[in-house]
Amino acid sequence: MFAPVYLDHNATTPLDPRVLEGMLPYLREQYGNASSRHEYGRAARRAIDEARQRVAYAVGAHPTEVVFTSGGSEANNLFVKGAAACLTPGAVAISAIEHPCVREPAKQLVRNGWRLREIAVDANCRVASADFQAAMAEKPAIVSVMLANNETGAVQDVGVLAAQARETRAWFHTDAVQAFGKLPLDFRALNGAGVHAMTLSAHKLGGPKGAGALVVDKRVELQPLIAGGGHERGLRSGTENVAAIVGFGLAAELAVARLDARAAQLAALRAELDAGLKAQGATIFAGAAERLPNTSYFAFAGLDGETLVGKLDRAGFAVAAGAACSSANPEPSRVLLAMGIESGLARGAVRVSLGTENTISHVRDFLAALQTTISQLKGLTALTS
Amino acid sequence: MFAPVYLDHNATTPLDPRVLEGMLPYLREQYGNASSRHEYGRAARRAIDEARQRVAYAVGAHPTEVVFTSGGSEANNLFVKGAAACLTPGAVAISAIEHPCVREPAKQLVRNGWRLREIAVDANCRVASADFQAAMAEKPAIVSVMLANNETGAVQDVGVLAAQARETRAWFHTDAVQAFGKLPLDFRALNGAGVHAMTLSAHKLGGPKGAGALVVDKRVELQPLIAGGGHERGLRSGTENVAAIVGFGLAAELAVARLDARAAQLAALRAELDAGLKAQGATIFAGAAERLPNTSYFAFAGLDGETLVGKLDRAGFAVAAGAACSSANPEPSRVLLAMGIESGLARGAVRVSLGTENTISHVRDFLAALQTTISQLKGLTALTS
Ligand SMILES: Cc1ncc(COP(=O)(O)O)c(C=O)c1O
Ligand SMILES: Cc1ncc(COP(=O)(O)O)c(C=O)c1O
Repeated sequence: MFAPVYLDHNATTPLDPRVLEGMLPYLREQYGNASSRHEYGRAARRAIDEARQRVAYAVGAHPTEVVFTSGGSEANNLFVKGAAACLTPGAVAISAIEHPCVREPAKQLVRNGWRLREIAVDANCRVASADFQAAMAEKPAIVSVMLANNETGAVQDVGVLAAQARETRAWFHTDAVQAFGKLPLDFRALNGAGVHAMTLSAHKLGGPKGAGALVVDKRVELQPLIAGGGHERGLRSGTENVAAIVGFGLAAELAVARLDARAAQLAALRAELDAGLKAQGATIFAGAAERLPNTSYFAFAGLDGETLVGKLDRAGFAVAAGAACSSANPEPSRVLLAMGIESGLARGAVRVSLGTENTISHVRDFLAALQTTISQLKGLTALTS
Repeated sequence: MFAPVYLDHNATTPLDPRVLEGMLPYLREQYGNASSRHEYGRAARRAIDEARQRVAYAVGAHPTEVVFTSGGSEANNLFVKGAAACLTPGAVAISAIEHPCVREPAKQLVRNGWRLREIAVDANCRVASADFQAAMAEKPAIVSVMLANNETGAVQDVGVLAAQARETRAWFHTDAVQAFGKLPLDFRALNGAGVHAMTLSAHKLGGPKGAGALVVDKRVELQPLIAGGGHERGLRSGTENVAAIVGFGLAAELAVARLDARAAQLAALRAELDAGLKAQGATIFAGAAERLPNTSYFAFAGLDGETLVGKLDRAGFAVAAGAACSSANPEPSRVLLAMGIESGLARGAVRVSLGTENTISHVRDFLAALQTTISQLKGLTALTS
């Protein structure tokens, strides 16, 4: 297989070989259903209990606060729709840069009589304080502000915002899918500040696809999204994906153990990347905000992001474009538009998100390939204009 | 590890080693997110497309009718709640023996103004014709009748029932989780008879936990349960569990290829099992119904099922009890009560569900262990009474 240098870790990460090793017994001889009352079932149950402890420990939560799901999208939907189903319809306030799997369920609530209030962000992708205050003055019943943005990597002061939201008595949720494994997470501290629920996903931190969690304060009443046999304290039914849950536990443990070393490594790589990008004339989005140590999101005026990503792929570098690429006529990123970025520049957006296996030569080779690609594209533009 | 003989295939099955082999590349070097626009992403997308074709082909559906989910429970919830959300509240009619992951979402609809109508079954676990007609006369908007029951293995004439339900213009759904891999399934034929949607799950047929599907006629309007990035034609968002989906495709293909051989093998084993059970004085539930070729569900008057299962486990045989075992004071099986089985006998229920790796000596050894266990328990009962 042609194997480009992978620089798209915010989309998904390689499964850590140690994690796969730990999962394999549950894909082989330990195949029991964790609800079964025999040796195979008990072995599966023990594995899930242990994984729950690992995940809880990694994020400073109690194991009983961890509800396993099939991923981050399910956990976000479980929170938004599950909490709403137990409340009288009111306002749901979310930041303007939430992932679609927070935004879309929030939009679904509108059909049930809810009002959707989006909270503005500033040019650095940070929640705008004045608009946050204004939104809280409308007394929402549910608030969701992500910990770190998947596109720009911008980090929010979620604890501070939750503290400010306290008077509303809203349930406050944060999507920590991108933060987990890249920043220290302490649910106990966040909970003390007023955060009631937090979403995690395994495949963004070296774990497998197919496992995630909603970490949730037990005072939050939730209607299950997937109702049935009563698994996960009645909050998420369905035969547990034992191997994926085991992998999630191991990935969480490994991510926390190497967090400091990893942050330092990524920061060094990113410094080199950012310097190179600036030298080539790129605009780095949310450049003045605290960002995830692995993420740089940038554009070159006049160059299309999709085109750039395609050319870089062929040159051997896997990176992401900023636009919603599923449609024939791609829309510029909502996140960038919310930041007030002019749509022409937004169409140029390219995201590089580094991971543990990346090296300084990956970054240097990428910068060289980018330079070449840009010269070619500019040459073409010059010829055709 | 102490490895009892596994006789609980309706709970879950061992992952077929050929299926695991096919999944491993997607747990190793092919780790891309199927939404990514680079080589890693495209490889993942191709794998999912292929798996969708395999699953569709195995059940006689068109690939575009297959919506991948995290399992059977999610697919059942997606159908029940997703269809209801697009309809004016009315009646939802389900058989009295549905799996909790159909029954519980149907109960959730009641909060939104729906009426839940349960359809009676007879002593052989078959939908009672007169009550089915009566339920249809109430013009339900949603009907769900399972193809094969997980406890007794009883098979319903779903095509016939769907044809009878046609006049109601209801959306007709069938949970085929237990039927898939054990009976031939033809969605095109079922659809022609009036079935609009069908639930599948990979881990019941040698595939991995964490993948399932709703096979659905495109005329059915569904609100997504997990909304977000718009995956699966907007019906199920969330990063696809590529490896599990690939495994589902392979398991579906293998199951269909060996269906006839497997059915013959299981039928022979089950004949031996049933003869032995009867010789020991067991009551076999739904004994006169067409049943899945691998399932026998039985009880001995006066002997508790949980106790029997515990003793058999220690004797080296993994089987299931019929009661909902999560509570301290186990309730007898709802399915058996719906069949009119007296609750004392129902408390004795034990389920043996065979699989491809089982042999005639497994069955004979099991019958011998059962004989011993029963004699011991009867001895104890005699002593204490
Ligand atoms: C911020 C954020 N939230 C949620 C998700 C969804 O998580 P999952 O892919 O596990 O469904 C993602 C990634 O896709 C994300 O980046
Ligand atoms: C009849 C039936 N439907 C649905 C399910 C749920 O499927 P899953 O375990 O994939 O969630 C099961 C098994 O648990 C079942 O036996």
